[in-house]
Amino acid sequence: MKLLEQKIIEKGKVLPNNVLKVGAFLNNQLDINLLSKMGKEVYKKFKHKKVTKILTVEASGIAFACLTAQWFKCDVIFAKKSKTSNVEGGVFSSSCFSYTHQNENQLIVPKEYLTKTDNVLIIDDFLAHGEALKALNDIVNQSGATCVGAGIAIEKGFQHGGDEMRKNGLDVFSLAIVESMTDDGKITFRN
Amino acid sequence: MKLLEQKIIEKGKVLPNNVLKVGAFLNNQLDINLLSKMGKEVYKKFKHKKVTKILTVEASGIAFACLTAQWFKCDVIFAKKSKTSNVEGGVFSSSCFSYTHQNENQLIVPKEYLTKTDNVLIIDDFLAHGEALKALNDIVNQSGATCVGAGIAIEKGFQHGGDEMRKNGLDVFSLAIVESMTDDGKITFRN
Repeated sequence: MKLLEQKIIEKGKVLPNNVLKVGAFLNNQLDINLLSKMGKEVYKKFKHKKVTKILTVEASGIAFACLTAQWFKCDVIFAKKSKTSNVEGGVFSSSCFSYTHQNENQLIVPKEYLTKTDNVLIIDDFLAHGEALKALNDIVNQSGATCVGAGIAIEKGFQHGGDEMRKNGLDVFSLAIVESMTDDGKITFRN
Repeated sequence: MKLLEQKIIEKGKVLPNNVLKVGAFLNNQLDINLLSKMGKEVYKKFKHKKVTKILTVEASGIAFACLTAQWFKCDVIFAKKSKTSNVEGGVFSSSCFSYTHQNENQLIVPKEYLTKTDNVLIIDDFLAHGEALKALNDIVNQSGATCVGAGIAIEKGFQHGGDEMRKNGLDVFSLAIVESMTDDGKITFRN
């Protein structure tokens, strides 16, 4: 999506350790108009899939998920993060390593919010090594619902999580795929 | 707002220690259609205030903030929570005690996202003792911006944070004010 790529070039900052900071429009400060246009692109891709629920993870996935859900006219569920592996009953959970924070989280969704008849679209702001996406997909599988695919704002193509999930059969649709970033801030996108 | 009150009666659960669980539509699972209608009510109240930014706090305030911001056609900023009081420079921060989690957090907003010329509307899903609202208002004051008021989904009137802030001159607009809750689940709203 050209508009998002332009915004990344204009407002994104490349930090050490392959961090791409997009706090000015996608996380921390949220450009609502852009997020709604991004949601529309995801809708165009998945509108024939009879999506009944959008699943994301707190906190930075929530905004993009909500503004995508408006196009699908469906509800959003966000997985909560817990640092303990002792999660209570009545939930689906899956563990997820955060490379950014270098810790392991459990992603948790109460069982009552996902049923076998749901067609679930996963939405997230970033896809890098794919840890969060794998955990969310795992939660959908546990519930018996159908995962129709994933809509991602920014995929870091050079960290290969997206390609791995595509090989495993998940329909991963990323609005911008960063192929490389250099320390002096040059960003190249996948065609 | 009658629609929200009905939803609270229908889907909310009263838990021990004055907890009102609304995970089925406002937190964890998000009723996007309802949230957008709630945002419209907040817009009707504050539309003459030339709102330039909406400020909320992660994670559960983000959805309501985004769907309110669509009416105002403005951006959203969400404060992040940090457990350490050692926050880096370049940020506005204010401490905030969580009665739910019985811990102290720092709420943090990078300075670059709030300027003296901003007219800021604070949005949050819950208002109880008012700790988060006070901290967000403090952050707006630190930035030199103008706080035009606060739009709250559910206020627990019996915990008095909202009334205290109103006495201090903040225009607090709550869509539903719970006056009392009993252990057997009876909820009464303020007229």
